[in-house]
Amino acid sequence: MNKTLSSFIEEKKQIIEVELERKLDTLEIPQRLKESMLYSLEAGGKRLRPILLLASYEAYNGKGDKALSAAAALEMIHTYSLIHDDLPAMDDDDLRRGKPTNHKVFDEATAILAGDALLTFSFEIILDDPLLDSEEKVTLTRALTHASGAAGMVGGQIKDMQAEKTPITLDEMETIHDLKTGELLKFAVFAGAYLGRADKEQLAHLQRFAYYLGLIFQVQDDILDVTGNEERMGKAVGSDESNEKSTYPKILGLEGAINKKSTYVKKAQNSLKNAGADGTLLEMLINYISERDH
Amino acid sequence: MNKTLSSFIEEKKQIIEVELERKLDTLEIPQRLKESMLYSLEAGGKRLRPILLLASYEAYNGKGDKALSAAAALEMIHTYSLIHDDLPAMDDDDLRRGKPTNHKVFDEATAILAGDALLTFSFEIILDDPLLDSEEKVTLTRALTHASGAAGMVGGQIKDMQAEKTPITLDEMETIHDLKTGELLKFAVFAGAYLGRADKEQLAHLQRFAYYLGLIFQVQDDILDVTGNEERMGKAVGSDESNEKSTYPKILGLEGAINKKSTYVKKAQNSLKNAGADGTLLEMLINYISERDH
Repeated sequence: MNKTLSSFIEEKKQIIEVELERKLDTLEIPQRLKESMLYSLEAGGKRLRPILLLASYEAYNGKGDKALSAAAALEMIHTYSLIHDDLPAMDDDDLRRGKPTNHKVFDEATAILAGDALLTFSFEIILDDPLLDSEEKVTLTRALTHASGAAGMVGGQIKDMQAEKTPITLDEMETIHDLKTGELLKFAVFAGAYLGRADKEQLAHLQRFAYYLGLIFQVQDDILDVTGNEERMGKAVGSDESNEKSTYPKILGLEGAINKKSTYVKKAQNSLKNAGADGTLLEMLINYISERDH
Repeated sequence: MNKTLSSFIEEKKQIIEVELERKLDTLEIPQRLKESMLYSLEAGGKRLRPILLLASYEAYNGKGDKALSAAAALEMIHTYSLIHDDLPAMDDDDLRRGKPTNHKVFDEATAILAGDALLTFSFEIILDDPLLDSEEKVTLTRALTHASGAAGMVGGQIKDMQAEKTPITLDEMETIHDLKTGELLKFAVFAGAYLGRADKEQLAHLQRFAYYLGLIFQVQDDILDVTGNEERMGKAVGSDESNEKSTYPKILGLEGAINKKSTYVKKAQNSLKNAGADGTLLEMLINYISERDH
């Protein structure tokens, strides 16, 4: 990985993790609820979404901590969605990133409520941020409700459930990915650039950039499930095959999937150029996401 | 019931129900998710919270539809909490208001997601309301996240779960009620009066009014579980006894509970007077809640 990017990622990862803990610490709430929220927030992960948000902010020369509450809020939304996704009634997962899932450590009721609390708190920390004015708060929370709600992530989860064990077309699969994971990535890129004062036209090009970035993320996820190293990834490969899940390699073949990814990388680069953000950390993130091995 | 109050309630109930349906209709979201959200929103109920919000707005001479999105948002939050509360991992209820609960009609995964979507959407409709300026949107959504989140309703639900089958003191029980149901009632009164331009001192007195109103609601709930008419209430009485739940009659005896309620009615009336809102619909609502038979 490029040295500039890797030190950026390391630095921001730490800043985000400190911020998440700091926000939770200020809450005067029942201890068990706080522990459950913290358990999943601290369970690690790449912190890709908040890092993307901060990279977008810096690509437009944003300075200081103004984007930090939106970054923390976004990671909280992502975390709540994982807690609810892992529930027995949903994916019924006992492990996430090699650790017991929230409802295994606590219980199902607590996990449901911890997810609800994280979702609610994510809006609160943006609305409470003294670095943002009212207009900015409204724009950011409005975009976050849209990205994470019924017309975004939650809608994608419903569609994903409905598509299980049903053969779907490439288009249908991409719609699901766009809603389920793409919308939060679009929010990340939008929020950072908006706070960095990108103009309307730039923001429109960035939406396309984030759209392709989301698909690149997904193609690579699917490719890794076929070709990945289990030890490196910390999870079993080949699970998509046994899950009867629709994937790029299944629909296009492995070579077709790799070619598709190349096409999307070019489109993402092109959108970024149109947004005047080529040569920034955002461009480095395309390759990082496209070539990651876990 | 007082005729002015009963016609106010009937009128507002209808306005709220039309508004809820209208808001959902505009959403371009997966059909099954929309059906699940609508099912619980349309399942009836007293609409007490939004009615209280609109009564508070009118008590301060608020005119027009400015308080309507907050009222609809509040009912959505209440509805999401009922959907999640009814889940097998929580209260495991098959029926609510005589109808099958959301997860019985759809499935658990859909019910979890419908709750998540309603919670998220509740903030969105306030943030989207063209009748509100940015400052008002921030104040209202900020207050709503606080009332419904870990430091409010969700925190109360955790405490309530922890208190199950454990004898608790009157103070502990009232803390749970204040968080679990009181915080949303406080939001209702606050939001209406804030939009009606009540001043800071009035708002502070109204917080106390809403606090007592919440406790009155709860004492009466507990009393009805002992003395109520099953047919009138549409549910079995005596369930608190068999649930080993802490209630006012159990801690204070039936007469003690009735006396407690009278004390709270006086305190609510007094707070309302201090807030300059005596003689309004809010005062009529005290008696309505205190003397309801279902």
